[in-house]
Amino acid sequence: MVVSIIGIGLLGGSFALAVREKYPKMRFIGVDTSPVNGQLALAKGIVDDVLPLSEAIAQSTLVVLATPVNVIIDMLPTVLDHLPSGATVLDLGSTKGLICEVADAHPKRAQFVAAHPMAGTENSGPGAAFKELLVGKNLIICDREKSHPDSLTLAESLFRDIGMKLFYMSPQEHDLHLAYVSHLSHVSAFALGLTVLEKEKDEQAIFDMASTGFSSTVRLAKSSPAMWAPIFDQNRQNVSQALADYIEFLQQFKQIIDDQDVKNSLDFMQRANVIRRVLDGIEKR
Amino acid sequence: MVVSIIGIGLLGGSFALAVREKYPKMRFIGVDTSPVNGQLALAKGIVDDVLPLSEAIAQSTLVVLATPVNVIIDMLPTVLDHLPSGATVLDLGSTKGLICEVADAHPKRAQFVAAHPMAGTENSGPGAAFKELLVGKNLIICDREKSHPDSLTLAESLFRDIGMKLFYMSPQEHDLHLAYVSHLSHVSAFALGLTVLEKEKDEQAIFDMASTGFSSTVRLAKSSPAMWAPIFDQNRQNVSQALADYIEFLQQFKQIIDDQDVKNSLDFMQRANVIRRVLDGIEKR
Repeated sequence: MVVSIIGIGLLGGSFALAVREKYPKMRFIGVDTSPVNGQLALAKGIVDDVLPLSEAIAQSTLVVLATPVNVIIDMLPTVLDHLPSGATVLDLGSTKGLICEVADAHPKRAQFVAAHPMAGTENSGPGAAFKELLVGKNLIICDREKSHPDSLTLAESLFRDIGMKLFYMSPQEHDLHLAYVSHLSHVSAFALGLTVLEKEKDEQAIFDMASTGFSSTVRLAKSSPAMWAPIFDQNRQNVSQALADYIEFLQQFKQIIDDQDVKNSLDFMQRANVIRRVLDGIEKR
Repeated sequence: MVVSIIGIGLLGGSFALAVREKYPKMRFIGVDTSPVNGQLALAKGIVDDVLPLSEAIAQSTLVVLATPVNVIIDMLPTVLDHLPSGATVLDLGSTKGLICEVADAHPKRAQFVAAHPMAGTENSGPGAAFKELLVGKNLIICDREKSHPDSLTLAESLFRDIGMKLFYMSPQEHDLHLAYVSHLSHVSAFALGLTVLEKEKDEQAIFDMASTGFSSTVRLAKSSPAMWAPIFDQNRQNVSQALADYIEFLQQFKQIIDDQDVKNSLDFMQRANVIRRVLDGIEKR
């Protein structure tokens, strides 16, 4: 069985490494616009070959789209056009609405499976890939009923085999929830990073005074702009609303602080403390 | 030598555990408004005795104020009033401006050392204390020239002995920098936690869809309101300005997203990416 990974970065590379371990005889082909990434992916043993897109598709049972979401939108119709009958194309994008719309408009929609693994790090590229990234993490599949049973079975089997937990929802639900539990925390980290860098022209001051709490809160500001700009763009209605809600809470808290309203300050934080129950659940996963 | 720890929580407890290891013969007395914390601190071996404040001060060479900063303000004059001659009182509060003002107004100012260890976790209480918390972390001492050389030497020796790196600045510089590199990340995490909890009434949805990135960004929302409300209140001018700057960047980014201005979206995130250099420095510590 031949699997092509389009975009051999953190996610595509980690998926390939995990699946390889379960299926040692599976052959992996890498497709990447960056020749260097292709070389690194070969050198790391993520893929057995690096080929042009058309050659890769022609011999694939499974094509995995692991590029930034704007590139997924551009490539999906072409990949479906050239996909052998009985083969499957799977995307790992962080947005689902627009990608599923593009798929729905294609006659070969049934050969497509829309998936999103809830995993990542702030690092990118084949060098950042590691086979444990997806183990024990959650995976969302959207519009399952629109995928051919065989395509769905292949995707579900591979994700389960590498230890992922599967969830199902509509692309609309997915994009709404993700705006709050993922996209917003990235926006908040990017803005926090800029605020501190803007103020502390002398980076040494940050070195000297920042604690691990700061590092943890701002960590996502290291994330790849090329990956995130199209996510924010494709999910802009939801992200914009989440940001508006967040800014509203920040303005409330600022007013409480300006008013020296310690009672409401305590109340604000005690309500936020409820997140501990949620985080303990996530960290136990 | 007898050391009294006023407020036997995460910070006071961790300081005592670390110093005990270097000075096994040092005797530690705990003072805490919560009898339970006193019992736990004894049971954990953080202190040898739990006594009322006045008895503890009377026999101490060093009194460490490790309570929330509002309580430090309230207690500092009383502690100085009853402090034996030649003894030292040291505070570990996260704000320095108001605390140093209160100290300056006292005739025994020279027996006081104002310090802030750049370390903590989102947990609190004696149970959360551990002797490695302060190792390798930075410590800021304010208004060193106002402390008696012997008091300064005692405080500096203990902090160095447990592996901390010492820095010196004015209370005003301290409070300004901390608003950006510490207090702001706590506000942003509390507000992020509330935003998500508000939207996701069904906590299961957060469990299912949040990744480790979300956990990391919102982790500080687990922090103790009783500790943070007085910090935000005492440093409100700086925290309010930092929040205003942060909200401004968030509004800029929201506008960029609403305008589908992908070029400036990339630029915004690339500028924030510079924080990687800073974080790598912090994490190497």
